[in-house]
Amino acid sequence: MTQPETWTALTRHWQDLADLGGIGALLGWDRSTYLPPRAAAGRARQSALLSGLRHERATSAAYGRLLDEAEGLGDLSPAQTRMLAVARRNFDRATRLPGAFVQTFSGHAGETYSTWTQARPANDFARVAPLLEKTLDLSQQMASYFPEFATPMDYFIDAADEGMAAAQVDEVFTALRQALVPMVDEAAQAQVRTDFLARHYPVPTQLALGEAIARDYGYDTAAGRQDLTAHPFMTRLGAHDVRITTRVREDDPTDALYSTLHEAGHAMYEQGVAEEFLDTPLGGGVSAGVHESQSRLWENLVGRSRAFWAGQFGRFQDAFPEQLADVTEDEMFRAVNVVRRSLIRTDADELTYNLHVIIRYELERELLAGRLAVRDLPDAWHAAYETNLGLRAPSDVDGVLQDVHWYGGGIGGAFQGYTIGNVLSAQFYAAAGQATPGLDTDIARGDFSRLHAWLREHVYAPGRRYAPGELVERVTGQPMTVEPYLAYLRQKYAALGA
Amino acid sequence: MTQPETWTALTRHWQDLADLGGIGALLGWDRSTYLPPRAAAGRARQSALLSGLRHERATSAAYGRLLDEAEGLGDLSPAQTRMLAVARRNFDRATRLPGAFVQTFSGHAGETYSTWTQARPANDFARVAPLLEKTLDLSQQMASYFPEFATPMDYFIDAADEGMAAAQVDEVFTALRQALVPMVDEAAQAQVRTDFLARHYPVPTQLALGEAIARDYGYDTAAGRQDLTAHPFMTRLGAHDVRITTRVREDDPTDALYSTLHEAGHAMYEQGVAEEFLDTPLGGGVSAGVHESQSRLWENLVGRSRAFWAGQFGRFQDAFPEQLADVTEDEMFRAVNVVRRSLIRTDADELTYNLHVIIRYELERELLAGRLAVRDLPDAWHAAYETNLGLRAPSDVDGVLQDVHWYGGGIGGAFQGYTIGNVLSAQFYAAAGQATPGLDTDIARGDFSRLHAWLREHVYAPGRRYAPGELVERVTGQPMTVEPYLAYLRQKYAALGA
Repeated sequence: MTQPETWTALTRHWQDLADLGGIGALLGWDRSTYLPPRAAAGRARQSALLSGLRHERATSAAYGRLLDEAEGLGDLSPAQTRMLAVARRNFDRATRLPGAFVQTFSGHAGETYSTWTQARPANDFARVAPLLEKTLDLSQQMASYFPEFATPMDYFIDAADEGMAAAQVDEVFTALRQALVPMVDEAAQAQVRTDFLARHYPVPTQLALGEAIARDYGYDTAAGRQDLTAHPFMTRLGAHDVRITTRVREDDPTDALYSTLHEAGHAMYEQGVAEEFLDTPLGGGVSAGVHESQSRLWENLVGRSRAFWAGQFGRFQDAFPEQLADVTEDEMFRAVNVVRRSLIRTDADELTYNLHVIIRYELERELLAGRLAVRDLPDAWHAAYETNLGLRAPSDVDGVLQDVHWYGGGIGGAFQGYTIGNVLSAQFYAAAGQATPGLDTDIARGDFSRLHAWLREHVYAPGRRYAPGELVERVTGQPMTVEPYLAYLRQKYAALGA
Repeated sequence: MTQPETWTALTRHWQDLADLGGIGALLGWDRSTYLPPRAAAGRARQSALLSGLRHERATSAAYGRLLDEAEGLGDLSPAQTRMLAVARRNFDRATRLPGAFVQTFSGHAGETYSTWTQARPANDFARVAPLLEKTLDLSQQMASYFPEFATPMDYFIDAADEGMAAAQVDEVFTALRQALVPMVDEAAQAQVRTDFLARHYPVPTQLALGEAIARDYGYDTAAGRQDLTAHPFMTRLGAHDVRITTRVREDDPTDALYSTLHEAGHAMYEQGVAEEFLDTPLGGGVSAGVHESQSRLWENLVGRSRAFWAGQFGRFQDAFPEQLADVTEDEMFRAVNVVRRSLIRTDADELTYNLHVIIRYELERELLAGRLAVRDLPDAWHAAYETNLGLRAPSDVDGVLQDVHWYGGGIGGAFQGYTIGNVLSAQFYAAAGQATPGLDTDIARGDFSRLHAWLREHVYAPGRRYAPGELVERVTGQPMTVEPYLAYLRQKYAALGA
C-alpha cells in the first residue's frame, strides 16, 4: 500500500475498534441501568461475544501488518507518530497474552466474583480464599508475560498509568501518609453540624439539581446523559456519547451530588478530547491517574470549596426550602467537608480516603511480591487499619471482603490511581489558578466557564497525545509532586478548623 | 462431522446470530429512547457495523456448509426440519444480498431517519425527499435480487408474511374497504361524549396504570420493561429481554393506555415462545400479520371491549378521581370507541385505521411499481386521503412525513401487516372464545389468565414452528378470512349505535 492508503486503512480499522468498544460500552451501560433481571445471563453472553469480536480485530495479523507498514512510513506528523506508538502498545499488550490464558483468567474472575457475592454477606473469607490464591497466581503469571518490568506491581501500575513505577508511587504515598495522619487526628476532632443532611430530600429534585450543576460545569448533555445505577460510573458509548450514572439517597443529598460532580468530571475530560483524535488510539483519557484527577478536581477542589457553596447554596435552599430553612451557607460548607475515621473506602471523606487507598495499595504490593500470603490477608488488613486509621472492622465484611476489585478481576494496579488522581488534581488546579487568576470569584458567581475552558485546552483536548508524565510536566511545569495537594489540604482544613 | 456435532455447531451458530441480533436491537432501542442528540451519526455507524458483522455470519460459506450437512441428516424431528427450513430461507434471503449493499442500505436508513427527525417538525419534505428517492431505488434494487417474485411488492409482502402475495392482500383490502366506508359514514355521525378525555392526566399515574394492566394481561416485566419514546414499539433484545415503549399525552390518557396494551400484545407473543425455540430460527413471531393480530387482539378486542371497562373503570376512577368524577363506565366505553375521520394513523379509531393502512399500502405499491415518483408523493397522499376519508392534511407534517417507516427502513411491505393483523385478530379471538367459553366474564373481573394461557399455548409457544398460513388454519380451522373481523365490527358498532 502507498502511504495515504496505509493510513486510511489504519484509520478505518481504529474507527471499527472504537465503534465495537462503544457498542460494548452500551451493553455494559444498559446492564447497569435498565436491564430486566431475567436478561442477565443473556447479556453476559452478548458482552462476551462482542469482546471476542473486538479482541479478534484488535489482535489480528492483518492489523499487525498494517502497524508494521505504518511504522515504516517516513512522513508522519508528531501526533501521528504518537498515535502509532499508542496503537503499538495496545497491540503488544493484547497479543502477548495467550488467548487460552485470557479465557482462563476471565472464567476464574467470574467464578470468584460470584463466590464473593455470597462469601461477603456470610463473612466467610475462608470460602473465597482458595479462589483468591489462584487469582494471585494468575496475576503474577500475567505480569510474567512482560518481563521488561522489574516486579509484577510495576507491570500493573504501568498498565494503568503509562510510565509510572511502584518506586514513584511508594515515594508519593509515603510522603502523603506522613502528612495525612496528623491532619486526620486534628480534623476528626472538629465539632460539625450534619443533622440536616439526614432530612428527606426527594429524588427528582436531587437529580435535577445535580444535572443542572453538571451542565453549568460544562458537561454537554447534548452529547451525554445521566441515569440511575447502583454503583455510579462514566462511560463513553461513542465519539459524542459520554454518559454518567448516579445513585440517590433520600436521606443524604451529598451522595448523589458528589457522585454526579465526580462522574461529570470524568465525562468532561472524555467530551473535551480534540475532534481530530476521536475514534483513534488517542481518543480518550490518558491514564487512570489523570482521569481521576479530573473527576476529583470538579468533585472536591471545586465542589467542596467555600466559593462553590457561595455560588450554589441559594440554589439548594430554593430547591429544598424546608430542609435547609435553619441552615447557613457556612454550615453546609462545613458539613460536606466533615472528616471522620471510618471503615468504608467509598464513604470516606477527602482526607481519610487516601489512607484507605494506601492500605490497599500496600497489601496488593506485598501479595504480588510474595511477602504476604492470602491466608494472612485478613489479619494484615486489620493491622493496617489500626496503624493508619486507629480502627478495627468488627468482621471481614467491612474488612478484606469490602471491595469488589480483587474478587472481580486481578490483584494489582486497581487502587493507586484513586490517590494519584487526588495528588494530580491539586497540581492541575494550581496551574489553572496561576494561568487564570480570579477563579474563586468566578466560582462564587456560579461561573465555571474559564476553568472548564482552560482544562479543555490543556488537559482534555490532548487526549492521549502525550504520555501522562509528559502531560503533567507540560501543563504544570513539573513532574508529579505531592506538594500542591498537601498545600491545598493544609489550607482548607486550617480554614475549617478556624 | 457426525450428526450430533453438526447439530451442536448449528445451534451454537444460531445462538451467535441471535446474540448479534439482540445487540443490534439494543442499539436501536437506545437510539429511540435515550440516545443524546449529538450521538446520532455515531450510532448509525455502530448499527451499520454490527449489521455487517451479523450479515457476515448469517451468510458465511461455513454456515452454508453446516446447513448443507444438516439437510443431509436422516434423523431430524419435525421441529428440527422446520428449524432448518426457516434457517435455509433466511440464509437464501441474506446471501443473495451483497454485504456491501446491506451496509449501504443500513447506513442510508440511519441517515434518513436522522434527517426525518428534523424535517418533520420543519414541515420540510423537500429536505428528506432526495434521501427517500435513494431509499426507493435501494428498495427496488433489493427486490431485484429475488426475481422469482412477480413484482417488488410481492417480494416485500412475502418477506413480512411468508406465503402471502399482493393479489391476496389486494383482495382482502378491497372487500374490507367496501364494508368499511359505509360503516365509517354511519359511525362517524354518532354523538359521543369525549370532553373528559381532554382533562389533565399526569404522566407518572398514566404510566403506572398502563404498566399495571399490561402486567395483568400477562406481560412479564422481569423479562422486559417500558420506556418512553416518540413512536412506540416492541423489541426483543435477548431471549428474556422483550421491551416495549410508549408515549404519554397529558391531555389524552387513551394514547398511552392503548399504545401500552398494543405493544404489550406484541411483547407477550415474543415472551411466550417456547423455551426450546429461543435463540433458534423458530424463536420469535412468525409474520408481521400474525404479530399484529396479537397486539390488536389485546389493544382492541380486549382493551376496547365493554367487558374490559367493566373490570377496569373503577381502577381508572381511583387513579384519576377528579378527572373522572362525572363520567360513567358506559361513557368511557363509548369514548374509547368513538369513530372520527382523522389525519393521523396512530390516533385513528378501529374502523378508520384500516383506511389509513390501505392508503399507505397502495402508495407503496405504486412507488415500487414506478407508477408514482417520490416528488409526487405529497400530492398523491393528499388525493388518497380525500378519496378514502374525505380529509386533507394542512401540511406534510401530518401528511407524507407522518410515519417513520419509509424514513427508518425501506419502502415496501411495512404497512399491510397492520390490517392483516386486524383481520386475523378477530379470527384468533373467535377461536379463543369457542375454546374457552366465558372469556367476557373473566375479562369483566379483570382476569385475563385463561385468554393469555390459551394464546400462549396455541399462538405464542409455536413461534415460527408453522408457516403463518398453516398456523392460522391449525388454530382457527380455516385460512385467513375477513368474515370474523367484519362480524366483530358490525356487532360492536351496532351495539354502540344503539
